[in-house]
Amino acid sequence: MKKNILAAQSGGPSSAINATLAGIVELGLETAQVGQIFGAVHGIQGVLEDHIVEIGTKLAAPAALSLLAHTPGSALGSCRYRLKEIEQEQEYEKILQVCEKHEIDCFVYIGGNDSMDTVWKMSEYCKKKGSKLTVVGAPKTIDNDLWGTDHSPGYGSAAKYVASTFAEIGRDCNVYDVPAVTIVEVMGRDAGWLTAASALARQNGGSAPDLIYLCERPFSQAQLILDIKEVLKTKNTVVIAVSEGIKTVEGQYISAAGQNRSTDAFGHISISSGAANVLQEIVKSEIGCKVRSLEFSLMQRCAAHIASDTDLTESKWLGAAALNCALSGISGKMPVLHRISNEPYQCEIQYMDICDIANKVKEFPIEWINKNGNDVLQEFVTYAKPLIQGEVVLPWRNGIPLHWSISK
Amino acid sequence: MKKNILAAQSGGPSSAINATLAGIVELGLETAQVGQIFGAVHGIQGVLEDHIVEIGTKLAAPAALSLLAHTPGSALGSCRYRLKEIEQEQEYEKILQVCEKHEIDCFVYIGGNDSMDTVWKMSEYCKKKGSKLTVVGAPKTIDNDLWGTDHSPGYGSAAKYVASTFAEIGRDCNVYDVPAVTIVEVMGRDAGWLTAASALARQNGGSAPDLIYLCERPFSQAQLILDIKEVLKTKNTVVIAVSEGIKTVEGQYISAAGQNRSTDAFGHISISSGAANVLQEIVKSEIGCKVRSLEFSLMQRCAAHIASDTDLTESKWLGAAALNCALSGISGKMPVLHRISNEPYQCEIQYMDICDIANKVKEFPIEWINKNGNDVLQEFVTYAKPLIQGEVVLPWRNGIPLHWSISK
Repeated sequence: MKKNILAAQSGGPSSAINATLAGIVELGLETAQVGQIFGAVHGIQGVLEDHIVEIGTKLAAPAALSLLAHTPGSALGSCRYRLKEIEQEQEYEKILQVCEKHEIDCFVYIGGNDSMDTVWKMSEYCKKKGSKLTVVGAPKTIDNDLWGTDHSPGYGSAAKYVASTFAEIGRDCNVYDVPAVTIVEVMGRDAGWLTAASALARQNGGSAPDLIYLCERPFSQAQLILDIKEVLKTKNTVVIAVSEGIKTVEGQYISAAGQNRSTDAFGHISISSGAANVLQEIVKSEIGCKVRSLEFSLMQRCAAHIASDTDLTESKWLGAAALNCALSGISGKMPVLHRISNEPYQCEIQYMDICDIANKVKEFPIEWINKNGNDVLQEFVTYAKPLIQGEVVLPWRNGIPLHWSISK
Repeated sequence: MKKNILAAQSGGPSSAINATLAGIVELGLETAQVGQIFGAVHGIQGVLEDHIVEIGTKLAAPAALSLLAHTPGSALGSCRYRLKEIEQEQEYEKILQVCEKHEIDCFVYIGGNDSMDTVWKMSEYCKKKGSKLTVVGAPKTIDNDLWGTDHSPGYGSAAKYVASTFAEIGRDCNVYDVPAVTIVEVMGRDAGWLTAASALARQNGGSAPDLIYLCERPFSQAQLILDIKEVLKTKNTVVIAVSEGIKTVEGQYISAAGQNRSTDAFGHISISSGAANVLQEIVKSEIGCKVRSLEFSLMQRCAAHIASDTDLTESKWLGAAALNCALSGISGKMPVLHRISNEPYQCEIQYMDICDIANKVKEFPIEWINKNGNDVLQEFVTYAKPLIQGEVVLPWRNGIPLHWSISK
């Protein structure tokens, strides 16, 4: 008997989350054992609301699958919904009912830490109730903080955007012969992995960024000023990378937004300012030269036109691996990447128990930050460099990238 | 006798200004009449300071020229320096001395409105003094507000970035099933051309941006709230494009930064950031849903990896045309693009007297804005669409774009 499968996406979108979906659908279409391929719209919420659509037919053409893999955002829609504790059976029963209605045997949930909590609870519930439904997770997060995997799908593409854009900004900032400081804020409330990727911008001879501050080390405003003055001794332009989530030694966010109030950690009044914006004012008053701040904002997670081909390939691969696992009747697992070697770069897929992953965090190794706390070490560059390799060949139309849409 | 040539770059950098330099150098290398090819470091300031470097040899290999054409920023460095009035001869004499020292016959200055003022004054001075030096301008500005040309080199690449990024952001913003407003600020202090390019994001079926506000029309916060409420009646996500320089009907900048009234060397009011951030707070309190703001900041002018091939080709072409003009002994001109047809898109080069260009501004046609002041019309799309066509084939190395540097 054929097995019907269901895929859904959860958490913040990335440039690679649709490649994982494409990997699931592609394997599903190729596998004789698979019947219908469904997608839940807006993650587990879509399952709870029986918002289930058939996507196998829509994606049957290889061109459609390739288009999906290069589309940013979450093509099925996403949610930030946490299932109640397993003892409160109502939600779980509803999910089982919807899956039974559509005769679904395998459910693959693509997401980050919180989504793996959903996979864990759901697979436990199925076990408890003797349901034949297998529930498997597929990893995704640009933050790269998923436990158990060498790196997370989506991180490589975001890191390639960060590295390439720092290389370009370094050129832009270098044109005038006047002292100027540019502070760039990179996503990462609790994880500095993506900010660290700015160091990859220097590989072709550029100097930007001159200083890198991750949220893993306490941030000192006084030290920042000293560091900038030191750089200004030898060059005019200073480009700085800071994590969104940098905090003082007392654990207080630098950003006014992070503190949920209109004044920042240093008492300045500010309208929902990010860390870079707050630092801009401080550097302006302390150093007195031209200072500007900017944020990579949504672009770092949705600039699919500059995705890492390595990342998309692995993302697709992990989607297929998750489905394979579910088809073989094994529940409560997540495929992870295990690095075999750096040169040549090689990873293999392993399967981890979801209970060993859910709600855990992979910290940035503090020993990869330099002594002064204003840069990362070569160990990080060696780790991250393979992940941003390879450029995607995009379908362009009318001068802009073409994207896949479920409604077409 | 051979003619030595000097090129320099001025004003804000772009993704295409080095393509214009490549066009000058390429023609110089190919032309038997041309002797040495020099570059002034940091524009006219570099000439005044005799900071002149030989660049013909450095760029003799076709691969080097191609690399230069795809490098963002101003490879020779830039300045924002306004020459004194022509009656104050000291600066002009210094420039002539430096040019005589290096036996320079032709000077091509790449820049925007303000740089053309320099070309005008300098060519007038040479005429007055009977100097053989010919001074010619080559156009450049992402703002697209240079008088006399159908469009400005640099605009097409910036417009391609804006259109592509709105298409990607539209996907990202659409993933959650909750009402959310995203306000994106696009560069343009006085010209809405670049903000208007956001409309090109909709060509492949996307809806973003839902609302577009250019600085050419007085901006009403009350109308913005009504417009957003209208969009929210039919969909959850609202993506908005606003020009950096939007102002109230009384002429007051929306951006808090704009109200500081600090002026630059040319008397422009400096408004580095802020309109979208200010509007975020207003929309949050008036509508109450999730609201975020972001700026394309430096990326829109330096993301050379997503440059328009049409733009780079034309930029190179105009550099060569400017040199051609200077070599033929004609001074005080600027080559401009004259559009012959839209389908097929075809432009020819014409030469304009610099006195008809300098210090003038090409306004965004007010009749291309819709009646409600919250969108642009098809006339603009027809005009702008050809300018973003074509993707560049970049030299990538180590996962990031490779750039050319004068110091190597």
